[in-house]
Amino acid sequence: MHHHDDEIDTARTQPAEVRTDRIEADYILETRHDPHQVAMVMAGEQSSGTFVALPTETEELRERAAARVESLVPLEDTPSESGVMHRVKVTLSWPVESVDTSLPNLMATVAGNLFELNHLSGLRIVDLRLPSPFAVPYPGPKFSIEGTRRLTGVHDRPIIGTIIKPSVGLTPEETGDLVRELCQAGIDFIKDDELQADAPLSRFEERAQSVMRAINDHAERTGKKVMYAFNVTGDLDQMRRRHEIVVGLEGTCVMASLNSVGLVGMIELGRFAEVPIHAHRNGWGYLSRCPTFGWSYKAWQKVWRLAGADHLHVNGLDSKFAEENESVIASALTCLTPMFATKPCIAMPVFSSGQTVRQPPATYAALGSPDLIYAAGGAVMGHPDGPMAGVASLRDAWDAAMAGIPLDAYAVDHAPLKRALEAFD
Amino acid sequence: MHHHDDEIDTARTQPAEVRTDRIEADYILETRHDPHQVAMVMAGEQSSGTFVALPTETEELRERAAARVESLVPLEDTPSESGVMHRVKVTLSWPVESVDTSLPNLMATVAGNLFELNHLSGLRIVDLRLPSPFAVPYPGPKFSIEGTRRLTGVHDRPIIGTIIKPSVGLTPEETGDLVRELCQAGIDFIKDDELQADAPLSRFEERAQSVMRAINDHAERTGKKVMYAFNVTGDLDQMRRRHEIVVGLEGTCVMASLNSVGLVGMIELGRFAEVPIHAHRNGWGYLSRCPTFGWSYKAWQKVWRLAGADHLHVNGLDSKFAEENESVIASALTCLTPMFATKPCIAMPVFSSGQTVRQPPATYAALGSPDLIYAAGGAVMGHPDGPMAGVASLRDAWDAAMAGIPLDAYAVDHAPLKRALEAFD
Repeated sequence: MHHHDDEIDTARTQPAEVRTDRIEADYILETRHDPHQVAMVMAGEQSSGTFVALPTETEELRERAAARVESLVPLEDTPSESGVMHRVKVTLSWPVESVDTSLPNLMATVAGNLFELNHLSGLRIVDLRLPSPFAVPYPGPKFSIEGTRRLTGVHDRPIIGTIIKPSVGLTPEETGDLVRELCQAGIDFIKDDELQADAPLSRFEERAQSVMRAINDHAERTGKKVMYAFNVTGDLDQMRRRHEIVVGLEGTCVMASLNSVGLVGMIELGRFAEVPIHAHRNGWGYLSRCPTFGWSYKAWQKVWRLAGADHLHVNGLDSKFAEENESVIASALTCLTPMFATKPCIAMPVFSSGQTVRQPPATYAALGSPDLIYAAGGAVMGHPDGPMAGVASLRDAWDAAMAGIPLDAYAVDHAPLKRALEAFD
Repeated sequence: MHHHDDEIDTARTQPAEVRTDRIEADYILETRHDPHQVAMVMAGEQSSGTFVALPTETEELRERAAARVESLVPLEDTPSESGVMHRVKVTLSWPVESVDTSLPNLMATVAGNLFELNHLSGLRIVDLRLPSPFAVPYPGPKFSIEGTRRLTGVHDRPIIGTIIKPSVGLTPEETGDLVRELCQAGIDFIKDDELQADAPLSRFEERAQSVMRAINDHAERTGKKVMYAFNVTGDLDQMRRRHEIVVGLEGTCVMASLNSVGLVGMIELGRFAEVPIHAHRNGWGYLSRCPTFGWSYKAWQKVWRLAGADHLHVNGLDSKFAEENESVIASALTCLTPMFATKPCIAMPVFSSGQTVRQPPATYAALGSPDLIYAAGGAVMGHPDGPMAGVASLRDAWDAAMAGIPLDAYAVDHAPLKRALEAFD
């Protein structure tokens, strides 16, 4: 699927900030019509235009308010039965004065009606550049990598995490027991499954109490405070209440499903959160998996980082999901790329889904950084020698990856890794 | 695109409420694998499952918490180069006890990670049935059709509306002048463009004051209060403040872009709104236009109605957008279909985008109801004899449609319609 190539820019150092006072968005456009004309229609639809020329739409008005087609770069055309399908990369821009610096209003401008235009056969928004005034009204991540490392006490290596499984069905007591076991196993980070929130089978408050009892006991005994991402996803009052409970119990992280709470939900959470926000992107498939329509992660994640996401999910290499490896790495790199000179808004990428001891070498080679959360379910709980060996094997695999030593060689005198390599191939 | 046929159910009278205490969702699944097996993977991914069998996932736990595959109906398979692509309609169900009645948590359950599973090549969520406990925590539309008719004084025919164009660029004074002209032209309803919110070029408060001065003057003089949907889309505090301004100026409607504010934003607005909520679906294209992935409107709109949407956009027949006519009608019908016996949550469908005098006959024939807002931009302002004739021509067209008289025949002694038919073909 060639569209992925056009979207993926693996350089971590590109200038992220627009030099002007204009908002810019890049799109991959597919159309059977003249691409220049379609780009003009897009700019019109998303600013002053309508389908009938109106006397009120003066030249002066267009000058102060209209979107502009900044550039149009031809990509490889696709021949088809019914004529050539043109593929172009289009950059549109808008003056901040006609949009303002509100993220919800930005969405309607850069990703509103234009996807429905019948002049086009495909449209993906692949990047977004915001001028510096956008950095003012939003908090951005309050904790980011540094705050997460401080709260977990984990430095110079990835944070090893796991997910409470089964996703739903455990009682609060059973969850607490599992967390106790995971703490003893040496885990750094644990998260609720995104399906678990405040259901009758596991009420939030009871679960939080049970989990934090295990975590606080362990911290008292060992000095190591495990970070638990409690899923506060819900209505606003529910999110506020659950966040209060977490903070009251000395918890150090909350989780929210971005596509469930939406932008206003995330902005509010970003404002009141006193602990890092673990941002889950479940539902991302319906926004991104179609080759011709939707969002690229590079554009999408900027909005959520500015709203306050500290950790952002990016899948993982060789996962159980359909996403290709190069797309996963591009997503992680973009989370680590500063957004504004004065407010970098760096989010810590979360690798998950089918992750075992197998992926660290390729992950580290591609990312060039240990600033990530590496979350594994089965690789921890399903290790043949139990969860302590599971955690140890993942630490081993990352130590090997960061030292540039092949896993097999490193496994010779690291038994947990050796056993894991036998179990997970 | 045959997927549309499977989604569209034009019956307005299907039982909308689930008889059990389970949540049900229907999907159109495309896969090269065994569809039964993929459906089981979907159910697992969206409830208790993980990719490694865990000792904690007992039979009893699965019984109380797991999703079930309720049915699997084969649709037409598609032969392709690399083997047969199976197409099936899958119905999954979940016990309310493992999800709870929170709409954001519902989203993560019915539309979470499953779109990313690599066992499937296509997945659309095409319907959603919620058990009655969901009707309790959410307000649903507070005004619906009845309240909108009461506030506008328009009965037994569609509400004729228009949109402020150019979309952005007019000053508050220019907008007020345009509204004054539209009031004099006999319009029932006017809306902000979704690109217009609170930009420096047209600050919300100034625009609202200017617009409501025109509307209140007109109402005092004529007794007719035009409904204006002010775009309150923004952060939560911005939405609250703008809503207060509207209510303080005796405005009768607010508008929000659903995909911009998200579910928490809409739920909050639904709770505090004292006037009808005009729900704009811009961005709908990136959720729906892909043939194989995404959402059907039938599933999607239920969530927003329950959250409080009084008016819901459905495009219009023969619009400038890519949506097919039968899909537009199916969307409108589903807005008019009760959700719960005790709380029907009916939303008034809004027809817009390239609407002129041409579409009313087919629209009325297909919908069988005048309970809609018919919004036209160019057909009002661009009428050769001016906006008053524009509004009159749309009223004529609807009178003709509802009386079953062909437009050409009706136009013989209705000059505004006659001129419009010449101008808009």
